[in-house]
Amino acid sequence: MPRPAPAELIEATRRGDRSALARVLSIVERGGEAAREVGRAAHGHGDGHDDDDAYTVGITGAPGAGKSTLTSALVDLVRGRDERVAVLAIDPSSPFSGGAILGDRVRMGDHALDEGVFIRSMATRGHLGGLAVAAPEAVRVLAAAGYPWVLLETVGVGQVEVEVVGQADTTLVVVNPGWGDAVQANKAGLMEIADVFVVNKADRPGARETARDLERMLQMAQPGDGGWRPPVVQATATSGDGVAEVWQAVADHRAHLESTGGLDERRRRRAAEEVTRLVAARLLERARATMAGPRATELAEAVATGHLDPWTAADELLGADAARH
Amino acid sequence: MPRPAPAELIEATRRGDRSALARVLSIVERGGEAAREVGRAAHGHGDGHDDDDAYTVGITGAPGAGKSTLTSALVDLVRGRDERVAVLAIDPSSPFSGGAILGDRVRMGDHALDEGVFIRSMATRGHLGGLAVAAPEAVRVLAAAGYPWVLLETVGVGQVEVEVVGQADTTLVVVNPGWGDAVQANKAGLMEIADVFVVNKADRPGARETARDLERMLQMAQPGDGGWRPPVVQATATSGDGVAEVWQAVADHRAHLESTGGLDERRRRRAAEEVTRLVAARLLERARATMAGPRATELAEAVATGHLDPWTAADELLGADAARH
Repeated sequence: MPRPAPAELIEATRRGDRSALARVLSIVERGGEAAREVGRAAHGHGDGHDDDDAYTVGITGAPGAGKSTLTSALVDLVRGRDERVAVLAIDPSSPFSGGAILGDRVRMGDHALDEGVFIRSMATRGHLGGLAVAAPEAVRVLAAAGYPWVLLETVGVGQVEVEVVGQADTTLVVVNPGWGDAVQANKAGLMEIADVFVVNKADRPGARETARDLERMLQMAQPGDGGWRPPVVQATATSGDGVAEVWQAVADHRAHLESTGGLDERRRRRAAEEVTRLVAARLLERARATMAGPRATELAEAVATGHLDPWTAADELLGADAARH
Repeated sequence: MPRPAPAELIEATRRGDRSALARVLSIVERGGEAAREVGRAAHGHGDGHDDDDAYTVGITGAPGAGKSTLTSALVDLVRGRDERVAVLAIDPSSPFSGGAILGDRVRMGDHALDEGVFIRSMATRGHLGGLAVAAPEAVRVLAAAGYPWVLLETVGVGQVEVEVVGQADTTLVVVNPGWGDAVQANKAGLMEIADVFVVNKADRPGARETARDLERMLQMAQPGDGGWRPPVVQATATSGDGVAEVWQAVADHRAHLESTGGLDERRRRRAAEEVTRLVAARLLERARATMAGPRATELAEAVATGHLDPWTAADELLGADAARH
């Protein structure tokens, strides 16, 4: 069976072909030249599809905070308004994460038969550019396939996953009652990426205190883009309580970004980061090609046996690289 | 107070100055030009210290498997033989990992007053080259400071941490009774990096079955470097049962590597990876510098507004970069 060309695959996703969509996302996930081809086709550059656009909502938080349940509740809500929604679960690619991911995916099974929902895990085990390249590309593919909402949920809690989700148009940070100390300890990182805080499992003791602690911290922090101060919303995703308020906070943040020009600014930053990562990935390919030569083997040997420091070895290879390009 | 030169700091660590050692490791952790300077000084290139060497033991496994307790028990054992030992806890740099790390560190507090033990967490939040550069550098610094054993323990379970620990001279993978399914699901990744399997918490039901399952899987797998087949050792780190057998397995693997030339081969591979990462890090710095220019801002704008795909933008910048270098 001949492989369909990238442009044909993308056209099939535009017609609503879910198996074509799954194939395209697998290509994006694997990276490399094939990803580049579908990326170009999906981007709509020059083919009149420039109006394709999706609003991305990042959902992150500590393990067990209830991110997946909240994501599922938000999917229900969006579907209740008859809008299409995709979920990208950003996978840490850890050899030890199998169990947790399976558990999460089972819960999302409620939406398996709904044609208006597309759910997909995305891992980028080791490939160049990684998640920071693959995730925005996947969002573009999903936008082109007609999903106006893309929820990006972190499965793991690695730095890269959190960064990727933090670059969403609106980022929700999910915490639990009593999580105050942890928040305190990690204030800087969370304050940077949160556009909305969700105190999930708000039916448990201490929810109000946690919300108050967060609000106090937020009052001390610098306001974010264009003066936005993240609201703190209490919710119980399992029962659905407060989920409409969470979505309202997303809508408020979106309206704020759109009225202040913050959305364009955010997307420019994201595009700049994506291009940087692609440039870096190409340069890393060059580095690996450089390392395949006989001189590199000699240099690695010299480093391994203590005759040369790795920095000097890298410099020598870079000099050789610069001369060749 | 003037800052001591890198060479002076390294000399102080050789004399046993622990606060100098802590400072040097902080510099290595932060990366950049200062890390390069101490790296060169620690490497001993040209100053007659070429015989500095440490044997590294990686300890990894799922959260809650008892890695930290096992590490602590191994430290006791090594100290009982009057050898010096350092522990590097490889931190996932996650904004959500604070609590777990504190818990682990408290347990290791038993060794706080022992001058022959040095314990350190290492995070490399976002810096270029990251753990893959910082960890081997830290090992060299610890070797130069007179620690013949360095235990590298993963705190998190991200891909990068596991890769770094998998590049140790001997890597222990810690599992628990009943963990069979998870191992099964992730067979490939674990079989690749394990030189010794430890079934920890072996006083619990199912330890023997788990050990047997692992042995069966190992019989089906390809033998590793030079025909080594990872032994499966049962231990209960909390009571100390089986810990001597774990250390014996490390000694056996070391003897195997030394007699087959596998140790040199492994260290060459590690050096090659380290140099590659350094080359890539330098190239990423170049990419970021390229992105700071006005043309890059225009290109990012074009990508953000859908007028250009990111791959083409990256290509254009790479062309510009190649012209400059």
